[in-house]
Amino acid sequence: MTLSASEVQALIRGGVPMAEDIGFTVEDVRDGFARAIVPFADNFVRPGGTLSGPLQMALADATMYAAILASLGKVEMAVTSNLNINFLQKPAPADLVAEAVVLRMGRRLAFCEVRLMSGEEERLVAHVTGSYALPA
Amino acid sequence: MTLSASEVQALIRGGVPMAEDIGFTVEDVRDGFARAIVPFADNFVRPGGTLSGPLQMALADATMYAAILASLGKVEMAVTSNLNINFLQKPAPADLVAEAVVLRMGRRLAFCEVRLMSGEEERLVAHVTGSYALPA
Amino acid sequence: MTLSASEVQALIRGGVPMAEDIGFTVEDVRDGFARAIVPFADNFVRPGGTLSGPLQMALADATMYAAILASLGKVEMAVTSNLNINFLQKPAPADLVAEAVVLRMGRRLAFCEVRLMSGEEERLVAHVTGSYALPA
Amino acid sequence: MTLSASEVQALIRGGVPMAEDIGFTVEDVRDGFARAIVPFADNFVRPGGTLSGPLQMALADATMYAAILASLGKVEMAVTSNLNINFLQKPAPADLVAEAVVLRMGRRLAFCEVRLMSGEEERLVAHVTGSYALPA
Repeated sequence: MTLSASEVQALIRGGVPMAEDIGFTVEDVRDGFARAIVPFADNFVRPGGTLSGPLQMALADATMYAAILASLGKVEMAVTSNLNINFLQKPAPADLVAEAVVLRMGRRLAFCEVRLMSGEEERLVAHVTGSYALPA
Repeated sequence: MTLSASEVQALIRGGVPMAEDIGFTVEDVRDGFARAIVPFADNFVRPGGTLSGPLQMALADATMYAAILASLGKVEMAVTSNLNINFLQKPAPADLVAEAVVLRMGRRLAFCEVRLMSGEEERLVAHVTGSYALPA
Repeated sequence: MTLSASEVQALIRGGVPMAEDIGFTVEDVRDGFARAIVPFADNFVRPGGTLSGPLQMALADATMYAAILASLGKVEMAVTSNLNINFLQKPAPADLVAEAVVLRMGRRLAFCEVRLMSGEEERLVAHVTGSYALPA
Repeated sequence: MTLSASEVQALIRGGVPMAEDIGFTVEDVRDGFARAIVPFADNFVRPGGTLSGPLQMALADATMYAAILASLGKVEMAVTSNLNINFLQKPAPADLVAEAVVLRMGRRLAFCEVRLMSGEEERLVAHVTGSYALPA
């Protein structure tokens, strides 16, 4: 039973309080894929006029989870096992977009790649890989 | 000029809004080391009675930064370049503690290891490594 | 001054003895990209009829380097700063192919993504990200 | 049934041809720990008088495996799932030492930390974390 973007968003916001706090919004899901944004808010800005690392990590983690929910349906007990982020450019003080792709859906681990993009031109600002441990 | 734990805490809370939000508290600093906690709050809990991944990543990132500030003094433009986290155990619904060690202070990159620990027995719940790019 | 695939291959084989040992072969280079293979050899096989992790890591590292040489010309003193590999599927006992893309060419760090693929259908077997520190 | 250092060494050399090629030598094992070296050989040296990255990664991977075999006995089908290496200093043209610690032995994943050290003073040259997937 597949979930819609708004169902995935509700599940994640319900389960991860920080997702609610940052206004995590799922724009699109399909099997093995999710696209989400964090709408810009003044209080995200850190010195240098950019968005904080933890905000970027929170978005990446939630978008991976969205791609997994979109693929498997409601697996609420899946948990992040590993997350590796490389910060490439300082994001502009603007909406932050994430696109997550499931590169390998195993029985026990789902492995994802996430690209974080900034501004209207959707410039790549961070690259993330991560694994979610799936319930047995 | 070395900074005290409370000076380091104030710098980080001033610069990273999410650190303020989670009650990031620096307990101890010395050259190449910082120890910090996030005091438990009900709204951190996610399904399964544990603390969210983004909360753990935010604490790890801020504690790395604290160890670098403790080593170099006020380098406010240092930014995270890479962060790799492995989640090992679900943390208990309790205070979350982080200890960061600078393993290599280069001219351009500082490399750190962080251990996240939970509860009174300070059980290891996550292991983090990361690099901060230092201003030229 | 751009380098050809065979020039890149000669530079890497000359500099990294293990590249020579595994028969590292550069098939294609262009700005920000390299494709290379390790031709199958019986002595690469490990228990379970698959190729070893170190062989995959050696190929990924050398192909990242090839993409950087293809982009910057002869920068022989560039060194790997970080490499993160996720093993997704056991590769078949067959040629191993790598495609590396430079996702960010900074002044001090080049960040790359590498996909390792196996067999005629070029099935994804491992995903790698890594950074090279560039000479000042 | 616990394995000795030489039994662990024989298992790994038998299973991973590259371990044999680099002279992988297990010096010490105990539950959750292994120490191993790669004796210096002229053909390991790359430009700049240092040891290659792939050599360091091969040693780190094999020493993780040694720590797992030392903990669990003969689990020959365990495979590396993730390996993340940070290169901190160029190793001297000398023996390369690795010490691996199992930080978390789960049912499905073993998570390890490895420190690579160089020369008589055993200076830290690289830091590695990694996961092995354990057979069900």
